[in-house]
Amino acid sequence: MSGPLQGIRILEIGHFVAAPFAARVLGDLGAEVIKIEPPGGDPVRQWGASVGGHGPWWSVHGRNKQCMTVNLKHPKAKKIVLDLAATSDVLLENFRPGHLDRFGLDEVTLRTAKPDLVITRISGYGQTGPGRDRAAFGVIGEAVGGLRYLTDHAPGVADLPPVRTGISLGDSVAGLYAVIGIMSALWRRDSEKSSASGKGAHIDVALTEAVLSLLEGVLPEYGTLGKIRQPTGGGIATTAPTNAYRTKSGRWVLIAANSDPLFERLCTMMALPELLEDSRFASNQARVAHTQALDAVIQNWTSQFDLAEVEHMLAEYDIPSSRIFDAADCAADEQFRARGMVQEITDPLLGKTLHPGVVPRFEENDAPIRWTGPAIGAQTDEILLGMVGFSEDKIAALRKEGVV
Amino acid sequence: MSGPLQGIRILEIGHFVAAPFAARVLGDLGAEVIKIEPPGGDPVRQWGASVGGHGPWWSVHGRNKQCMTVNLKHPKAKKIVLDLAATSDVLLENFRPGHLDRFGLDEVTLRTAKPDLVITRISGYGQTGPGRDRAAFGVIGEAVGGLRYLTDHAPGVADLPPVRTGISLGDSVAGLYAVIGIMSALWRRDSEKSSASGKGAHIDVALTEAVLSLLEGVLPEYGTLGKIRQPTGGGIATTAPTNAYRTKSGRWVLIAANSDPLFERLCTMMALPELLEDSRFASNQARVAHTQALDAVIQNWTSQFDLAEVEHMLAEYDIPSSRIFDAADCAADEQFRARGMVQEITDPLLGKTLHPGVVPRFEENDAPIRWTGPAIGAQTDEILLGMVGFSEDKIAALRKEGVV
Repeated sequence: MSGPLQGIRILEIGHFVAAPFAARVLGDLGAEVIKIEPPGGDPVRQWGASVGGHGPWWSVHGRNKQCMTVNLKHPKAKKIVLDLAATSDVLLENFRPGHLDRFGLDEVTLRTAKPDLVITRISGYGQTGPGRDRAAFGVIGEAVGGLRYLTDHAPGVADLPPVRTGISLGDSVAGLYAVIGIMSALWRRDSEKSSASGKGAHIDVALTEAVLSLLEGVLPEYGTLGKIRQPTGGGIATTAPTNAYRTKSGRWVLIAANSDPLFERLCTMMALPELLEDSRFASNQARVAHTQALDAVIQNWTSQFDLAEVEHMLAEYDIPSSRIFDAADCAADEQFRARGMVQEITDPLLGKTLHPGVVPRFEENDAPIRWTGPAIGAQTDEILLGMVGFSEDKIAALRKEGVV
Repeated sequence: MSGPLQGIRILEIGHFVAAPFAARVLGDLGAEVIKIEPPGGDPVRQWGASVGGHGPWWSVHGRNKQCMTVNLKHPKAKKIVLDLAATSDVLLENFRPGHLDRFGLDEVTLRTAKPDLVITRISGYGQTGPGRDRAAFGVIGEAVGGLRYLTDHAPGVADLPPVRTGISLGDSVAGLYAVIGIMSALWRRDSEKSSASGKGAHIDVALTEAVLSLLEGVLPEYGTLGKIRQPTGGGIATTAPTNAYRTKSGRWVLIAANSDPLFERLCTMMALPELLEDSRFASNQARVAHTQALDAVIQNWTSQFDLAEVEHMLAEYDIPSSRIFDAADCAADEQFRARGMVQEITDPLLGKTLHPGVVPRFEENDAPIRWTGPAIGAQTDEILLGMVGFSEDKIAALRKEGVV
């Protein structure tokens, strides 16, 4: 009743987004996650909106984790981390390359504590190479990975900067790749079907590279043809019409009527059958060449109706479409609710709130949200007593010395 | 010498982006991937730019896979697929829910062929719930998942539609979650550390849900405070300055000087020490409240210099920054090259081209790109002879009947 990864223990020494996000995904699927934070806590606890000093984001970001504080700078911290590593399957971190080594937590020492440990590091540019030490925030990873260039209107349309996706996308995608690396390494280590069973691993995920790996044909098209992919705003370069159109109420609706039969239905729905006789719109190729004119016609039509009216008509004509969901739309969506993907949760620190469900969904649906993001150091004693076997007196002494 | 997933066989009955992308990631890490396509081939082979009918995207999307054709509509196809499923660890598909059942390839039948098969399905809205049958393209998944709303300028800045990220992001993220599900299920099945070892799985990934799961605090902030997260263009709502700024040459540079010491260095670099005395910019909170004015000052400064000059100065003052990379920048990047993340590859169908490397990177770097995307049906005979044990005569007969 607690997910496919029951039996795996993850030691997270992460902060901000990438490593903690990866650990959340693993915890969602049933892994046991021990998060080590400095005594002041992971700064992400305060990011975004806040209620009495507690961030709703943290409620999700820290869920299903056990949180303990360790001051890594204290000389006695090293042994605690090694004791925990010895009982863990995975160590997951996202400091700058080499940072943990400074506290004596280099790979050789970690392997002495646990020879087959799966050491997983997430960083901006990777653990090796001439650029490994550069400062990298998520936005930089997205820019270097080639995504930010494409998240923009077509050249010449607007003199505004290319937008962020609006979320920490580079961190999240790097986190997902880290989870893939971890589960691949654990399968290799634990399966007799693997010819390298018993073997640990050292996994090295860079934000820049995680983003680059999603870029479809951008790199081979440049390599083969010298073609530099350009941004295309709300549309798609190779098919039309597909874009977002504003309705009378100001809300945007997405319409993807980019096949001949769908385009016919769209023209019938708009009561503009003359478009079907117009040579500019006679084929996908023609429509792509005249996208701007076509989008203007559709925009003119949608702006006459409220969002609900437009949605109703599009559904009636079975044209792939959707309003552009904001947070309230996501929260209210019947399909998300039916599949447990929007869940009403009571967080002891926040009260009633909403959480996204567990992805990927296993059919037996056996990965519940066990608890929300705990307070700083909430499980420090429990972990030191139970997993490392320290006495209460010893823990009290460590606390006095500022180690935990 | 061929990746951590050597020993795993994936049967891909996928098309377009999501399932084939997931299979690419698994193949990159050493899994054996058998891709079943209709006799006309996966339409994605023609997507994007093309050289003599061969798409550079396909070179990457199909790499490390063995491709065979099967006409699923033919009554004799079912047995071939079941024979292949019987020797596979995973079946991965992304048809509309229920589509494979129509060819007799329902779950019960698949499990008869291979009881512990890991069946993985990717769809727009998921396999269950009132909305499961809706048409879903990637752009719709991104809109329903709440991302498209945020990939936009702040309300009132421009009357332009919110942009796509520029790539099939919803498909790719759903693909990554599918890989996580697959590896979690295989670990559970094959590890003695799991209390459910030997058990297969049925994994159900929706594009909409994969996107929703990345949305940081959007859902809990709405659930707790009723706050609807708004887009913020090139900036970040909670910190400043961080944005893209245009240089004299027209190219954009990203500057993230959003801490007090970084902001000080930026002002010194711009030779505008008076900004440090300006109460509007005296703290992060103050800078956030006056982002527009601050961005205008920085924009005015960057527009006086060419990209290379601005980059040089930012590096000298150690301010986190980067040009916004286009395809040519990615291809030329020293760090990507040093880490094998941009690789020169010869594709028999295209000639010399460039591929992104394998992510996540294992330290031993034992996951080479073995081959580029094969031609349609290139391995049909080899697979039927070697894996299913058909004779050459039988294969010839099946081909004559239009089954393969």
